Amino acid sequence: MIRKSVQNLEPYTPGEQPKIANIIKLNTNENAYPPSPKVLEVMRNFDLNTLNLYPDPLCTEIREIIASQAGCGIENVFVGNGSDEVLRLATYAYVEDDDTIGYFSPSYSLYPVLTAIRAIESTVLPLPTDEELPCALDKAELSKKPALFFVANPNAPTSTLFSPEQMRNFCKRNSGVVLIDEAYGAFAEKDCIELALSMPNVVVCRTMSKAWSLAGIRLGYLIGPADLIEAIYKIKDSYNVNALTQQVAKAALSDPEWMNANREKIIATRTHIINEQRKLGWECEDSATNFIWCSPPPPETAESVKNTLRRHGIIVRYFPGAQTGNYLRITVGTDKQMDALLEVLKMKGQE
Amino acid sequence: MIRKSVQNLEPYTPGEQPKIANIIKLNTNENAYPPSPKVLEVMRNFDLNTLNLYPDPLCTEIREIIASQAGCGIENVFVGNGSDEVLRLATYAYVEDDDTIGYFSPSYSLYPVLTAIRAIESTVLPLPTDEELPCALDKAELSKKPALFFVANPNAPTSTLFSPEQMRNFCKRNSGVVLIDEAYGAFAEKDCIELALSMPNVVVCRTMSKAWSLAGIRLGYLIGPADLIEAIYKIKDSYNVNALTQQVAKAALSDPEWMNANREKIIATRTHIINEQRKLGWECEDSATNFIWCSPPPPETAESVKNTLRRHGIIVRYFPGAQTGNYLRITVGTDKQMDALLEVLKMKGQE
Repeated sequence: MIRKSVQNLEPYTPGEQPKIANIIKLNTNENAYPPSPKVLEVMRNFDLNTLNLYPDPLCTEIREIIASQAGCGIENVFVGNGSDEVLRLATYAYVEDDDTIGYFSPSYSLYPVLTAIRAIESTVLPLPTDEELPCALDKAELSKKPALFFVANPNAPTSTLFSPEQMRNFCKRNSGVVLIDEAYGAFAEKDCIELALSMPNVVVCRTMSKAWSLAGIRLGYLIGPADLIEAIYKIKDSYNVNALTQQVAKAALSDPEWMNANREKIIATRTHIINEQRKLGWECEDSATNFIWCSPPPPETAESVKNTLRRHGIIVRYFPGAQTGNYLRITVGTDKQMDALLEVLKMKGQE
Repeated sequence: MIRKSVQNLEPYTPGEQPKIANIIKLNTNENAYPPSPKVLEVMRNFDLNTLNLYPDPLCTEIREIIASQAGCGIENVFVGNGSDEVLRLATYAYVEDDDTIGYFSPSYSLYPVLTAIRAIESTVLPLPTDEELPCALDKAELSKKPALFFVANPNAPTSTLFSPEQMRNFCKRNSGVVLIDEAYGAFAEKDCIELALSMPNVVVCRTMSKAWSLAGIRLGYLIGPADLIEAIYKIKDSYNVNALTQQVAKAALSDPEWMNANREKIIATRTHIINEQRKLGWECEDSATNFIWCSPPPPETAESVKNTLRRHGIIVRYFPGAQTGNYLRITVGTDKQMDALLEVLKMKGQE
């Protein structure tokens, strides 16, 4: 009774959410700082007599705020139950059953899972450099161009950024939809929203999970051409974003100063830690995100450092495999958390 | 760039959520009473420092409560972002691309939309009586039995109930999965949860939107055989139920007395109003739900009464069409709201 593609499916593995007290959690790229105090006001003053009613199915108020911040119309904005929902809906809205979905490797490990859930063939290309990006698809000499191409930008887990200029060239050479996943966009110096508002085949996905410190409420959004946005609205669940999330998101979005202050703290911490790691002989990518993609000096291995950190109550993310097995992905936490991390890395160096 | 089946799609139309003050809203079967005061406690005491973290992807605490109330294991319970998500996931988990999805007509108007979104052929059978139910599929002499059959029980918009005995016979004669949608189950005298826990092809869907007064938080769940539940977990969005909803649902579920008291009030009001409507010459179905499916005495028409009610600030649901156009679907509100309704119906009778 179960669909064959589902029987064979290897589901997505979310990062561990341990229940151990006092753990330093640097494994799922959450924001170490709490959301705006305006969120607390919403929670404290919430009118219980509205929860028995269905929420606004179209998230109108949130869309208005996002549209005004992005300089577009609300018809250019879709709001979803986390960017998880947004990315999934794109695979159903833009892809026929005999099309393919493309993405780079290594990149966000959800893309292959979404492709498998959609029961569609995938086109996996090696992660190009910024210069290689525009011709990455042509170079692959595919018999069929992907109907949808996911580009995480900045990329996870590598923390690197494609420039908007090269992204534009990449999108121009694509016949299908390019979904630029800017989950970490707030931590980068440049973004691609302008492309989504000027090119017919480009959509940009954003989330409140990272920069806005609101992974718990599940709010993601998509910006792009009105026809591509409308297609997503046609197939979403009727009431996809609950009333609490809508109210909390509205309050947080009205306080961008809070988000910006946290972002700047995180970027400063990131710069400091990468410097310190490099002094210890670590190889670190220049990060455009709230995490560090880094490789320890031999004879250390990423896996052994991960285990040592764990023994000291610090959890980081490790992806086994040829492309990623030499690296750790370490979320940039508070200065105090990162000092604790550095202390272990230094001890480790002296062992 | 947009998938053909999506281009052709007629999306689901949620009931109107008017922003007019003092309106009496009897059009979307929401609960007229607020949720448990324990929900308010959760909101007032919510720890902001947890919202920056991802929620439990498996809703473990909620599943434990539901499993213990239903007398099953947590492997028999899936928790979703409203029953909208649950119903959609069933179409992707249990149905191959060349299968069909079945449902009765008239029934919940979301089923044809979900089938169209899944880009699958539908098998639509006329709504049978309780006696006709077991053989409804055989009688249709289909070349192919549906891989998934949606049965709203109690049915919307007709408010009627199939007995668990006849449902069992119907499910026995099905080779595919039967999803019994008990959105209104709390208002009926009997339910089919026992079938979901004893038959290999039966799952029962429930929601907190109606009896629990929590349409705003979006929480639905599915009870059934562990293999069918596991298939749904494999394809859901990674973090499908947000942290606020999980906490609020947990608090509400810990206070079933509150829900039961509201349910009994609603059932008493329902009995009273149906009696009064019948005295006025209305034809009303015996309702097993929190709404009344009713037809005015000629020469009144359902549409004209709907318009009159609207002018008096009372909104009810009207579905045009041959099967439903003679009826109104009226949510059972508070006694005060329903007295206002009756007053208009009486005036209307004297016009």
